[in-house]
Amino acid sequence: MKIFFSLTALLPVLAFCQTAVSDSLVIRSFYTLALEKEQAYADLQKLCAEAPGRLSGSENLEKAIEITAQMLREAGADTVYLQPVMVPHWERGTQNVAWWEEDSGDKELHVTALGGSVGTGPGGISAQVIEVTRISQLDSLGYEKLNGKIVFFNRPMNAAKINTFDAYGSCADQRLNGSFEAAKYGAVAVLTRSLSLSTDKHPHTGTLLNKGEYKIPGAAISTEDANLLSELIKKNPEGKVRLLLDCKTYADAQSYNVVGEITGRTYPNEIIAFGGHIDSWDLSQGAHDDGAGCVHAIEVIRLFKQAQVNPERTLRCVLWVNEENGARGAEKYAALAKENNEKHLVAIESDRGGFTPLGFSIDGEETPRNAALSRMKSWEPLFYPYYVQYFDLGGSGVDVSRLRDQGAALVGFIPDSQRYFDFHHAETDNIEHVHPRELELGAASIAALVYLFDRYGLYD
Amino acid sequence: MKIFFSLTALLPVLAFCQTAVSDSLVIRSFYTLALEKEQAYADLQKLCAEAPGRLSGSENLEKAIEITAQMLREAGADTVYLQPVMVPHWERGTQNVAWWEEDSGDKELHVTALGGSVGTGPGGISAQVIEVTRISQLDSLGYEKLNGKIVFFNRPMNAAKINTFDAYGSCADQRLNGSFEAAKYGAVAVLTRSLSLSTDKHPHTGTLLNKGEYKIPGAAISTEDANLLSELIKKNPEGKVRLLLDCKTYADAQSYNVVGEITGRTYPNEIIAFGGHIDSWDLSQGAHDDGAGCVHAIEVIRLFKQAQVNPERTLRCVLWVNEENGARGAEKYAALAKENNEKHLVAIESDRGGFTPLGFSIDGEETPRNAALSRMKSWEPLFYPYYVQYFDLGGSGVDVSRLRDQGAALVGFIPDSQRYFDFHHAETDNIEHVHPRELELGAASIAALVYLFDRYGLYD
Repeated sequence: MKIFFSLTALLPVLAFCQTAVSDSLVIRSFYTLALEKEQAYADLQKLCAEAPGRLSGSENLEKAIEITAQMLREAGADTVYLQPVMVPHWERGTQNVAWWEEDSGDKELHVTALGGSVGTGPGGISAQVIEVTRISQLDSLGYEKLNGKIVFFNRPMNAAKINTFDAYGSCADQRLNGSFEAAKYGAVAVLTRSLSLSTDKHPHTGTLLNKGEYKIPGAAISTEDANLLSELIKKNPEGKVRLLLDCKTYADAQSYNVVGEITGRTYPNEIIAFGGHIDSWDLSQGAHDDGAGCVHAIEVIRLFKQAQVNPERTLRCVLWVNEENGARGAEKYAALAKENNEKHLVAIESDRGGFTPLGFSIDGEETPRNAALSRMKSWEPLFYPYYVQYFDLGGSGVDVSRLRDQGAALVGFIPDSQRYFDFHHAETDNIEHVHPRELELGAASIAALVYLFDRYGLYD
Repeated sequence: MKIFFSLTALLPVLAFCQTAVSDSLVIRSFYTLALEKEQAYADLQKLCAEAPGRLSGSENLEKAIEITAQMLREAGADTVYLQPVMVPHWERGTQNVAWWEEDSGDKELHVTALGGSVGTGPGGISAQVIEVTRISQLDSLGYEKLNGKIVFFNRPMNAAKINTFDAYGSCADQRLNGSFEAAKYGAVAVLTRSLSLSTDKHPHTGTLLNKGEYKIPGAAISTEDANLLSELIKKNPEGKVRLLLDCKTYADAQSYNVVGEITGRTYPNEIIAFGGHIDSWDLSQGAHDDGAGCVHAIEVIRLFKQAQVNPERTLRCVLWVNEENGARGAEKYAALAKENNEKHLVAIESDRGGFTPLGFSIDGEETPRNAALSRMKSWEPLFYPYYVQYFDLGGSGVDVSRLRDQGAALVGFIPDSQRYFDFHHAETDNIEHVHPRELELGAASIAALVYLFDRYGLYD
């Protein structure tokens, strides 16, 4: 009797252990498959080789859409479809250059147009350069000192920040808002220090915002040349820079979000979405940004199929279009989800590169956000063998953020960030700078999180 | 009265908070100094440029000893001294090559001698090759099948292991013991698959153990050529490889451990030691292995001085000599510590590369080990802002392990391991593969741990 009682008392404990063991085995199988087969890396190699520079409006973006749709079919998605989206179409052109003008011969500076910039006209723009480190300085300088000048925004990223995205976030205003803020005071162009913690010769592009009538050309200058230019201005404050950009905006183009699903066997109407963005800047392969996020998400589908895990809910891989210069894909995706009364439980974005995973950050309205945080904290032991230990509130991603008002918990994949901004939006963002194992660990980590949300849902 | 009582009741809480806040500020200052100044990286650049290939017995090792002693003085150590150690002296020579012999022309294979190997003689050794994946297979093959043959150990590292050191650990027996185990059965030489998870053309060297009379030449073959050789053998099992090595062992040489200290102001006789090994293999710059560990430890001294933290206990940076092929420096260091009745509280080794820190593993006799584990677990919140969250029992390091019987808690620095074995013991272990921020984060993390052990000791 005593023995019988003891065993009975143990049953819930055993049941818990069994569940935990089976969860840990499923998760282990994802990591093993990912690391042994390196399929996400093979996909990324193909995407980078066959469709680099996937900017909205480009042929390579349309090629990438075909390639990834095919990858999703091969990965085992039971449904693959495209969502039509009209996207902006801006082209960098062939002339992206600047010179510090000197009698003894001009010094060439490594620059490239910021996305969305207007061109300078064929003769370029030559003007004196005013260096600032904060947009607020424009107000004190005023029209008199800025009219007819080139404004040079030169605030470096803060190296002391541990997560480099925090350093980026506190500097990105220069690039986003600098041109129209300077234009208000009559500036004729802006040069913006590249948003990178590495000192090198590669300019890093990225979007500038055009607001109303204030449109002047904007270019990123490499960090090395930003330091040089700052020195040159100190020596000769009257010195001029000539900037030549032939970038141009065209009519909007037809494009698509790419979607691949495994239909849920128990709750097919509850959706767990995960993905990255299929577009990239034109001047790189878009390997980390965001080829990595795309192949992570495709790999989640493949890992579920290969591990023969049939999900309860519908797993949906989404490759959003036009994250870089408009987020039209995310807007369209969210609008369609609302129109179709879809119920998104969780939406996970991978848009911080293909580096070693550290954890996930959680966003969304209060109720789903807190539910996700508490769930994820309880899963920490399952992620411990993989050194994935960061689960906290924080930003998710541009694309999933559009689902905020639809009750989804929004989750951002957080890999190690130290190297990301060395390559971000620069021509060096290529497959050589992606480590196969680091990439694969990310895919397996996202698959593990998707698995746990699928098995346990968001709420008790 | 009620208010008075409440305030009194709060005092211990406030005291705790104040302590925690001041600890977190000190730790934050270490990270800020490290990331903003990148001094450890500058030291590593210098060490790699001026004293690459610091193998025991080499001139460059002696140069490295001078350079690092000077770095310790400049970092602010109040005492810098050398501990004389006699070290083995082996040289790779100039001929490290092998060919698959074919009538249509020989195929060259990328090989290099394993450290401590005997040479082949000027004519080389030509013999049929027997491929195995485990040493235990030698017993079943026996003398008849192995006599006069070259044994080819070709077990790859297990890609599914999350920590690549686990994958290394389960394969290193081939390299360490393969040659004398094969020699017992009359084999004339061994080729060992390079211990790397990357498929490339670089052979990775490392020590082989010579035991008694069983000395035959041993070479590492690149992973790419190991795969090729395996295919060639399948096609032609009678095929031969010719191996040519002119490596040689010389008489022991004079060398030194490098030691730098900040004397403790309260408990000068209690020592917190931390360090890496000053020697490296001859064929690389020894950037990750273990230049990184050396500059980490030098930087700890500098960070304490720059943050103006005067330690209670004596902080000792130790750069052990001869870790790679003998551990004579570690033996000598431990013997002197015993002889001088030194009391080591904690000894921390950084010998897993200069990658993003994840945490620390803890070893030693039961009492200090458990005390350190419980201390370190309680400090987890202080490391949370730095994504350093792994504190667990596990291996420490070859050099500190010699202090086990002296009551020290032994601690190993654990950085992300994914890229380490791409470069380990190969010519690619150079400064180009070290990321400044990843390296600096390691130095700050070790400084933070040293600070906490200094402030709170090991036992309550």
